[in-house]
Amino acid sequence: MKTIAVVLSGSGVFDGSEIHESVLTLLALARSGAKYQCFAPDRPQREVVNHLSGEVMEGEQRNILVESARIARGEIQPLSALSMSEFDGVIWPGGFGVAKNFCDFAVAGSDCKVEEDVLRVAREFVAAGKPSGYLCISPVLLPQIVGEGVLGTIGTDLGVAEAYNQMGGKHCDCPVDEVVVDEAHKIVSSPAYMLAGDITEAAASVESLVAKVLSWCD
Amino acid sequence: MKTIAVVLSGSGVFDGSEIHESVLTLLALARSGAKYQCFAPDRPQREVVNHLSGEVMEGEQRNILVESARIARGEIQPLSALSMSEFDGVIWPGGFGVAKNFCDFAVAGSDCKVEEDVLRVAREFVAAGKPSGYLCISPVLLPQIVGEGVLGTIGTDLGVAEAYNQMGGKHCDCPVDEVVVDEAHKIVSSPAYMLAGDITEAAASVESLVAKVLSWCD
Repeated sequence: MKTIAVVLSGSGVFDGSEIHESVLTLLALARSGAKYQCFAPDRPQREVVNHLSGEVMEGEQRNILVESARIARGEIQPLSALSMSEFDGVIWPGGFGVAKNFCDFAVAGSDCKVEEDVLRVAREFVAAGKPSGYLCISPVLLPQIVGEGVLGTIGTDLGVAEAYNQMGGKHCDCPVDEVVVDEAHKIVSSPAYMLAGDITEAAASVESLVAKVLSWCD
Repeated sequence: MKTIAVVLSGSGVFDGSEIHESVLTLLALARSGAKYQCFAPDRPQREVVNHLSGEVMEGEQRNILVESARIARGEIQPLSALSMSEFDGVIWPGGFGVAKNFCDFAVAGSDCKVEEDVLRVAREFVAAGKPSGYLCISPVLLPQIVGEGVLGTIGTDLGVAEAYNQMGGKHCDCPVDEVVVDEAHKIVSSPAYMLAGDITEAAASVESLVAKVLSWCD
């Protein structure tokens, strides 16, 4: 049975993992007969956003691992405990948590720096020739993980695509239900809510990405 | 186009809405061509649970509407604004939020009292002959909403089934992927994570329930 690590960045699109993308990833994996294990960094979120008003909740502090546990129904482990050798691949759902908690892309753009714990795990899978799936905004991590010329997509957002290229990646526009593949590094990305107009489009994106990741595990 | 109200009780299985059930409900509705609008009460949660440790976070306060907005990606309205006449039906996902924030079943069992804002909405749909779907633990609300003899299921949990009957309902055991129907009140219930061993079983439960709700809207 294939076993995939899913790395979460909190619970909620504006300060953590995008919840629909995360749940749809777990569903697509399970329906494909794969097992999954969720992970998240055990450190504070950059900020907490009131998802009703969209405003930062000043003074509020939450932990990425503790909040990600909401999506995982408590079945989650700290990212530091992720042993690449136990998994056949890894998937990174989107949400602002990627751009706020996994790196500082949300504030620094193309000058962003990816957190060490994220770099460690992401690079281990690539180095081992195991597949990785990057949804939504999470491909902004790729140039620092892989280096020059890595293929990826965040859909068709001009600003983010430009930043992706400035960081050394090679951005490819992509419709929401399709994927962009970097065959050399076994990396697949898909736009999900960077483009999805509704949850069915997000599901189509996630399902395409999960299918590609699992196809590499055969 | 059919339009369904989805009423959330927070964001996270131990103190709010069960996230998988909520997202899978939205997905099943959208894939069936129905529109949805999420609602939640604008009042404090009974408690906040650390979903990693399972322990109550003493001193922490969160608002049901604000946290539910995480599942709804900000597209949510206060339950007090729900106008039954604008919807063809209503669905109540599960999670301990139902037993803690919609009533006090989690502490009072069969002596529980359903909150007035929940009673108001739930009864309006029944009185209008519009369909209602109750997932997971949420059927414990039904005896007070409908009264004596209302048919419902929470799966096969003996204690909860007994409490359901003590409150005046008539509990029917039910496999996870099937539904129990109270035809007279157009109420359908399904066990979801009261029984589901994994997310695919939860999805099967949700899809059966959504299909039944929408069939009544034809």
